[in-house]
Amino acid sequence: MYRSHTCGEISLANKGQEVQLSGWVQKIRNKGFMVWVDLRDRYGITQLIFDEERSSKELMEKAGKLGREFVIQVTGEVIERESKNPNIPTGEIEILVSQLNILNTSLTPPFTIEEETDGGEDLRMKYRYLDIRRNPVKNKLVFRHKVGMQVRNYLSQAGFIEVETPYLIKSTPEGARDFVVPSRMNEGQFYALPQSPQTFKQLLMVGGMDKYFQIVKCFRDEDLRADRQPEFTQIDCEMAFVEQEDILNIFEGLTRHLLKEINGVDISDFPRMTYAEAMAKYGNDKPDIRFGMEFADLNKLAKNKGFNVFDQQELVVGIAVPGAASYTRKEIDKLIEWVKRPQVGANGLVWVKYNEDGSLKSSVDKFYSSEDLLGWAQQTGAKAGDLILVMAGDTDKTRTQLSALRMHLGNELGLRNPDEFAPLWVLDFPLLEWDEETQRYNAMHHPFTSPKKEDIPLLETNPGEVRANAYDLVLNGNEIGGGSIRIHDKKTQSKMFDYLGFTEEEAKEQFGFLMEAFQYGAPPHGGIAFGFDRLVAILGGQETIRDFIAFPKNNAGRDVMIDAPAKLDEEQLKELHLKLRL
Amino acid sequence: MYRSHTCGEISLANKGQEVQLSGWVQKIRNKGFMVWVDLRDRYGITQLIFDEERSSKELMEKAGKLGREFVIQVTGEVIERESKNPNIPTGEIEILVSQLNILNTSLTPPFTIEEETDGGEDLRMKYRYLDIRRNPVKNKLVFRHKVGMQVRNYLSQAGFIEVETPYLIKSTPEGARDFVVPSRMNEGQFYALPQSPQTFKQLLMVGGMDKYFQIVKCFRDEDLRADRQPEFTQIDCEMAFVEQEDILNIFEGLTRHLLKEINGVDISDFPRMTYAEAMAKYGNDKPDIRFGMEFADLNKLAKNKGFNVFDQQELVVGIAVPGAASYTRKEIDKLIEWVKRPQVGANGLVWVKYNEDGSLKSSVDKFYSSEDLLGWAQQTGAKAGDLILVMAGDTDKTRTQLSALRMHLGNELGLRNPDEFAPLWVLDFPLLEWDEETQRYNAMHHPFTSPKKEDIPLLETNPGEVRANAYDLVLNGNEIGGGSIRIHDKKTQSKMFDYLGFTEEEAKEQFGFLMEAFQYGAPPHGGIAFGFDRLVAILGGQETIRDFIAFPKNNAGRDVMIDAPAKLDEEQLKELHLKLRL
Repeated sequence: MYRSHTCGEISLANKGQEVQLSGWVQKIRNKGFMVWVDLRDRYGITQLIFDEERSSKELMEKAGKLGREFVIQVTGEVIERESKNPNIPTGEIEILVSQLNILNTSLTPPFTIEEETDGGEDLRMKYRYLDIRRNPVKNKLVFRHKVGMQVRNYLSQAGFIEVETPYLIKSTPEGARDFVVPSRMNEGQFYALPQSPQTFKQLLMVGGMDKYFQIVKCFRDEDLRADRQPEFTQIDCEMAFVEQEDILNIFEGLTRHLLKEINGVDISDFPRMTYAEAMAKYGNDKPDIRFGMEFADLNKLAKNKGFNVFDQQELVVGIAVPGAASYTRKEIDKLIEWVKRPQVGANGLVWVKYNEDGSLKSSVDKFYSSEDLLGWAQQTGAKAGDLILVMAGDTDKTRTQLSALRMHLGNELGLRNPDEFAPLWVLDFPLLEWDEETQRYNAMHHPFTSPKKEDIPLLETNPGEVRANAYDLVLNGNEIGGGSIRIHDKKTQSKMFDYLGFTEEEAKEQFGFLMEAFQYGAPPHGGIAFGFDRLVAILGGQETIRDFIAFPKNNAGRDVMIDAPAKLDEEQLKELHLKLRL
Repeated sequence: MYRSHTCGEISLANKGQEVQLSGWVQKIRNKGFMVWVDLRDRYGITQLIFDEERSSKELMEKAGKLGREFVIQVTGEVIERESKNPNIPTGEIEILVSQLNILNTSLTPPFTIEEETDGGEDLRMKYRYLDIRRNPVKNKLVFRHKVGMQVRNYLSQAGFIEVETPYLIKSTPEGARDFVVPSRMNEGQFYALPQSPQTFKQLLMVGGMDKYFQIVKCFRDEDLRADRQPEFTQIDCEMAFVEQEDILNIFEGLTRHLLKEINGVDISDFPRMTYAEAMAKYGNDKPDIRFGMEFADLNKLAKNKGFNVFDQQELVVGIAVPGAASYTRKEIDKLIEWVKRPQVGANGLVWVKYNEDGSLKSSVDKFYSSEDLLGWAQQTGAKAGDLILVMAGDTDKTRTQLSALRMHLGNELGLRNPDEFAPLWVLDFPLLEWDEETQRYNAMHHPFTSPKKEDIPLLETNPGEVRANAYDLVLNGNEIGGGSIRIHDKKTQSKMFDYLGFTEEEAKEQFGFLMEAFQYGAPPHGGIAFGFDRLVAILGGQETIRDFIAFPKNNAGRDVMIDAPAKLDEEQLKELHLKLRL
């Protein structure tokens, strides 16, 4: 026993008691005749006092030698503070130390270990164990644990069984790149680390497990974009004998549960929207519906009025920015610059100020009458005082660009309140997407997703129009989960592989075991998977995942703390039947 | 919605209701005018009935075409059975089917999917998804889930935080072989899969997490022995500011909790024993204490009595086998044969029958008087009716051999009751063990284990005698967990690496980050790790782990269901900067 209490729990109720604490020296104020120390552990901070009048000379000397991040154990009496600190739970007391035991010393840490740190990202990653001592990081890890427990308890109570699927599986060229693991015992052969337990969870459904879940690490060897990790965590779920509606209900329930238990928020609306609707209204398959600015199609109103720029375009589309009619020319120019950046790539913006006095002023006054512009205002839902912004071009591209602008304005105008939560189902995703590079269709979700029955004939005539029984769960503009009702018969699955350009041989080699399993009584089934890192970050009111991961990797896939990956001994390579090709 | 109820929940209380069920056809009895079907899902079996008098012709025909493992959906009325089956919860009712929907057909399964199967191990592994449909396998997976939930809830309530540590880490030549993962983005470099999160959990303690746990996959590229898996699951735990006693108390609590909640067993005794005592009393560092037959040292009583065979040996040691004085000569010869097998390797057995009438008869009557033998009986605790078995030889070897015999007799005599649970702490393990092959000392637990303070001087003079602050948790003769108080200062850790034959450079390259972390205020800490697969198996009353793992690998490390590992494309190898060396 190194302590009778933690540093977060002592209050005036303990006044007069002798207590024992252990922790880290966060701060020292040494006035010579008196020394105050802030002692920190996971649970909080307690103030220690050493006092010339009440402490031995030896103790005063020892206290004087303490440094930041020393690990100490103290015994002392709980006394009432003279100047109380109402900001922390232990702020009314301090410990008059009678015994001090230095458990370990510390070098001066490379950055300050407090709420705000002076350490840059690289330094914090190299000394991640020191970064974790800081409340903002530590609290995120504790938060992650709490979310995980809530997920597990909810699903377990709903009859789901957590089943561990294997990590050493088989590489499939489909989709992203696999990380592979050479086998020493099977010369020239490799395992692959799972990109997801997709086929295994489907086999568990064939195996009658009925309701499966797993919180599980997955791996993807991609060129890393910001905020992507080569290893990430998934809440993976699958159910048998279900239709889409059953899955939506269960996981709407989970989402409500988490928002209630973790964030204390009761969700009233849990809307649903088709993919087509989401694209038309928000230009985005994961719209943030905490705020409006819905897209208005202006094709009818804005074309063929003599403004050549619009006439030639596939889509003219606008949004009403609330209260922005007062923007100066400079502010509007800044927005125009913003959309012209290569990251957005728009040609420009047409703007219409719908002034408070009801007058209308636009950048295209030459071509459109006030009446025309009033029509635009009605269509976009603009009210007096709003600013209408309009883009034109190819439908898909323009929607994407306007969506970027909408999100940008949402941020700028403070409409994306991190304490507000707006979940949304997006349904009826396309089954296939066209890949320009390979000039063929790929599965948008994955090759196990079932097409909508009524769209199956379109597979022959217009594959891009086929809708899938696929759904995404969106929270505050982030896709937090996605899933589908799967194909469960061999014939349809074979046909799907065929559509996707697999030869029969390839399909057999990669997914033969699944196709075989489908011949032995596969039940109808479907599921969903959540990106756990992102879910936790969003519930935590953040958009970057890195600090919700204890030991993240950098953008080159390196762990800079342990310095991995690293070279292997020649001996080890030999055992694995490998040579480097450098 | 494919069902209104599951196949495990309908009873007479539902009589007269129309219900909808989905599941697999387990059994069909077709009398022509009547067809009975046992419909199975994860939750149970419900009997369906199709009846010429009450069902349409079309329905009778459809029912007649059903085959084993077809997936069907039925609607029908709950009626009372004429001949009830008291062995299953749904045994009082059956469903008079009005609608039958065949959701999927099935080929004839390669083995019967019932409690007892005719499928051999290989076939069951290839079609594991069918094997999982069988109750004995399915129930073990559900059981595993329950144990996992209990572990998580207990530890979480005790203030432990589950933190996910990385899977892509760094290879260390120490200990067992690592599985490695070539990095595409870092040419010529490799990650390694963790053999355990040992260093990361220690870094979390340096990081102030205070109480950490994780249920986590670990990997070891060993030549597989029976019942070992290349990937296995660990309950990994670590605590800061603790002494050994604190850890023993917490995890004694966890063990009691699991035995209570999972097995309904209240444990009264939770004994502790030193390693030295365990070896002397049971010849084993994981003794099964559900039964006695403790070793008795007979050196004083049996040596120097003219029996040359004993005189020359280091140790003469015996056990009393309860009630076995009645063994025939043949039965005793069988035991002698058993210990002479190469797997045990003993030279033989000396036996003494302590007959019911108080007389003594032995294989060494020539050398020992009845009085001598009575002394042996007293020493071994034999009572009239028992058989005393004695071995002699080198201390370590002989203890191991006698331990094997003791366990064999425990099994033979039915003393190892799977419904009885006897946990035990074994303490004070040696710090080092001598490796004949490399002619040096290795860490018995791992190089981070702290030596007992009072034994540190022995490191210079008699390293083999140094005891560690290391402990194992033993349940029914199986090591289910092991841990230690760690070294937490750089100096001692460096010294330890030195003792273990690491050069300074090697230590730095492999564990530099840990040594560096120790310089920034590492707290005293320690922990434990449980083999989750084995823990679950033992709580489930079994000794083999394979059926508690959803998708196990065979002894060659292969997943025969998905046929992994497998060859890679040349393209993939190129991207990874690798060539095969075949």
